[in-house]
Amino acid sequence: MPSSFVLSGLVAHTPTKDRFQIMEPGYLLCLDGQVGGLFERLPQAYAGLPCYDFPRALILPGLCDAHLHAPQYAYRGTGMDLQLLDWLNRITFPQESLYADALHALHAYEPFADALKNSFTTRAAVFATSHTPATMTLMRLLERSGLCCYVGKVSMDRNAPESLLSAPGADARADLEAWLGDALTGFERTRPILTPRFAPSCSDALLALLGELRKAYRLPVQSHLSENLDEVAWVRRLFAQDSCYAGVYDRFGLLRGEDVVMAHGVHPTPEEEALLREAGTLIAHCPASNTNLASGIAPVRRYLDEGVRVCLGTDIAGGHDLSMFRAIADAVQVSKLRSHFTHGAEKPLTLSEAFYLATKGAAGFFGPVGSFETGREFDALVLDDSALASPLPLSAPERIERAVYLDRELVLLHKFVRGQRIPLGNGKEGASP
Amino acid sequence: MPSSFVLSGLVAHTPTKDRFQIMEPGYLLCLDGQVGGLFERLPQAYAGLPCYDFPRALILPGLCDAHLHAPQYAYRGTGMDLQLLDWLNRITFPQESLYADALHALHAYEPFADALKNSFTTRAAVFATSHTPATMTLMRLLERSGLCCYVGKVSMDRNAPESLLSAPGADARADLEAWLGDALTGFERTRPILTPRFAPSCSDALLALLGELRKAYRLPVQSHLSENLDEVAWVRRLFAQDSCYAGVYDRFGLLRGEDVVMAHGVHPTPEEEALLREAGTLIAHCPASNTNLASGIAPVRRYLDEGVRVCLGTDIAGGHDLSMFRAIADAVQVSKLRSHFTHGAEKPLTLSEAFYLATKGAAGFFGPVGSFETGREFDALVLDDSALASPLPLSAPERIERAVYLDRELVLLHKFVRGQRIPLGNGKEGASP
Repeated sequence: MPSSFVLSGLVAHTPTKDRFQIMEPGYLLCLDGQVGGLFERLPQAYAGLPCYDFPRALILPGLCDAHLHAPQYAYRGTGMDLQLLDWLNRITFPQESLYADALHALHAYEPFADALKNSFTTRAAVFATSHTPATMTLMRLLERSGLCCYVGKVSMDRNAPESLLSAPGADARADLEAWLGDALTGFERTRPILTPRFAPSCSDALLALLGELRKAYRLPVQSHLSENLDEVAWVRRLFAQDSCYAGVYDRFGLLRGEDVVMAHGVHPTPEEEALLREAGTLIAHCPASNTNLASGIAPVRRYLDEGVRVCLGTDIAGGHDLSMFRAIADAVQVSKLRSHFTHGAEKPLTLSEAFYLATKGAAGFFGPVGSFETGREFDALVLDDSALASPLPLSAPERIERAVYLDRELVLLHKFVRGQRIPLGNGKEGASP
Repeated sequence: MPSSFVLSGLVAHTPTKDRFQIMEPGYLLCLDGQVGGLFERLPQAYAGLPCYDFPRALILPGLCDAHLHAPQYAYRGTGMDLQLLDWLNRITFPQESLYADALHALHAYEPFADALKNSFTTRAAVFATSHTPATMTLMRLLERSGLCCYVGKVSMDRNAPESLLSAPGADARADLEAWLGDALTGFERTRPILTPRFAPSCSDALLALLGELRKAYRLPVQSHLSENLDEVAWVRRLFAQDSCYAGVYDRFGLLRGEDVVMAHGVHPTPEEEALLREAGTLIAHCPASNTNLASGIAPVRRYLDEGVRVCLGTDIAGGHDLSMFRAIADAVQVSKLRSHFTHGAEKPLTLSEAFYLATKGAAGFFGPVGSFETGREFDALVLDDSALASPLPLSAPERIERAVYLDRELVLLHKFVRGQRIPLGNGKEGASP
């Protein structure tokens, strides 16, 4: 596969959230891993490059999954009758304890990495567990997948089973730095990310340590925020001195900057919302998870209007489906119910807005990705939607809408990350371009 | 395939809504198209029957889709940013007009019938359009599929494009009776059903005619009820004399009895709810559609508590997915959001309750179906869930939960309707039992 080439077909993306830019056919230029341009006619200067033509396919940006838990993939779709705190104690924590066993981790993470590789996702922010060897196994598997991922060894030192707690006291730094020593070398596409599980499972000392490491190593951060009303009340009790849940992370230098993502943000106080906007924190909206765990529905319309950064996540296994197309459709759906039930003044999300959340909404955090604007990293999906052919001709916007809603009928022909083609293992990929 | 046989494997069903009855392994006996019993050990009396063993499969009752529109299958997943009345006028009515063309109908209905055959559905109540030849085409295709379906030629004589309106005045009876003449003969599994589109598109005269035909021919009825707040207000204006929306149908003899299904019932008044209970009307709850069209969420918990009969439908194409497993998961999900937002006293649906809605909840309307209790018609699915294998052994309830939530990873090995095996066309079916 050459490092510079052209894809042609129906190309669509959302440089702004208000609408899709669609070219049919469009010529999408990859120059050394970056988008070199999107053209209605290929400029003469690039006529010598290999051009791969997909006259019946959709070419869309790779999707960004800003929140999921790798060890939960193995039991996704179970325990769906529980709410957050029960679900953590009865299902998640006992399962995560098993990752102390490196062989278990390998057996569980291999199918996960394989599924993620074959999904519509090109970038992901992944929680592992608190176990260093298992986390390194996951990083190596994801590196091999060709995707670009952040992977976090989970930090937690209270309110969880003993076997999941981080090394206590002075050992905590040594434990994290030993991981970082391994995790910061030898990877091209996989990066470590600081991962306090969520405020209730972290002492002040642990959060302070993470804040120091963030500064010292310039590391990104992921955690959970204001997901569930009981959890929010618990945080208020545990951290009575802080103005709000996000304020806890902020106090320790774990909230500000475009490289911080906080999952959920379903129940922000007005003060918290103002803080998130000011801090530039990215919220990973996880509609399926917030529905399954009966957490509620995040105020995404308000976030967009007020300038809080927001993107999407599957939250495997609070969410049960790894498909980011499904997450886009879910985001539209739940926004309609929020609007119907309690927030009639908040217009539901449109398809292009939700698509933007799953692509360019996560730019910055994942680097310059998420659209086909010149200079962005070249992450692209080539999708065969011929199973969705209709007796009537479909317009390009209709084909895109159907691809999102009926994603189970798509065939992923090719997937590019930073201009590199991912060798898919689904037995369905097209002839090598 | 013999007419009496035994299936063995993990057998599960919901004779009551409160829990699954699970046998692993169970021996499920089919005697001449009916369930002959479900046994932990096969009684000696049946030892001579062919026994097909599926040690790694799930054996579940066939699912009942009590509300969907065949002509909308071709454009499912489009127009999802609209609400009901706009969606009807801008997408549905123009599309349905095309079914005046018999060739268009054939081209559009063939893939629909094929998809339904290969789905998890064994019984369906299907809206066609107002065109008799196209409706007959659909009936013949569904008959050939091997499923048991009700098919309705749609009746409407106002508030829709001219080309979709029923024959006016005195011709209306002749038009419907001509259809019934054809539709009541020559079919083993396919039955006509009277189908006023919804009250706003029917004059009193048309509803009265349908009431007469119901009585004369002993025909079942399907329609729409209290789906959307604007629609409910419109009905109140159009039928000011009736106490409620359901009261309109009741006035014309189109509401009472176990062979009447009304889709949606999202916004019943207390009076309407009492009427539905008293009349024994079956409500087809369509969670995906009610979400996509921002209609709201039906009070299913209250219906169950108060004894209003309720089952499930996909409502293609208000709903975009033909999978009734997805409809089960959707029903659980939206019940959590309803409970979270506005009806905290109404407990969300459990998985067994939602599964019951999709199976035994529709019994009566579809005949004695929906469970593996002795004497019921033998509708069964044999499902390979091996793609959902986990590094850890899964319990039987976990396997069932994952099959529902992760249905896109299931392979439908075999499907039986009234004891007859449906020859599936998905290229994946197992060796012939």
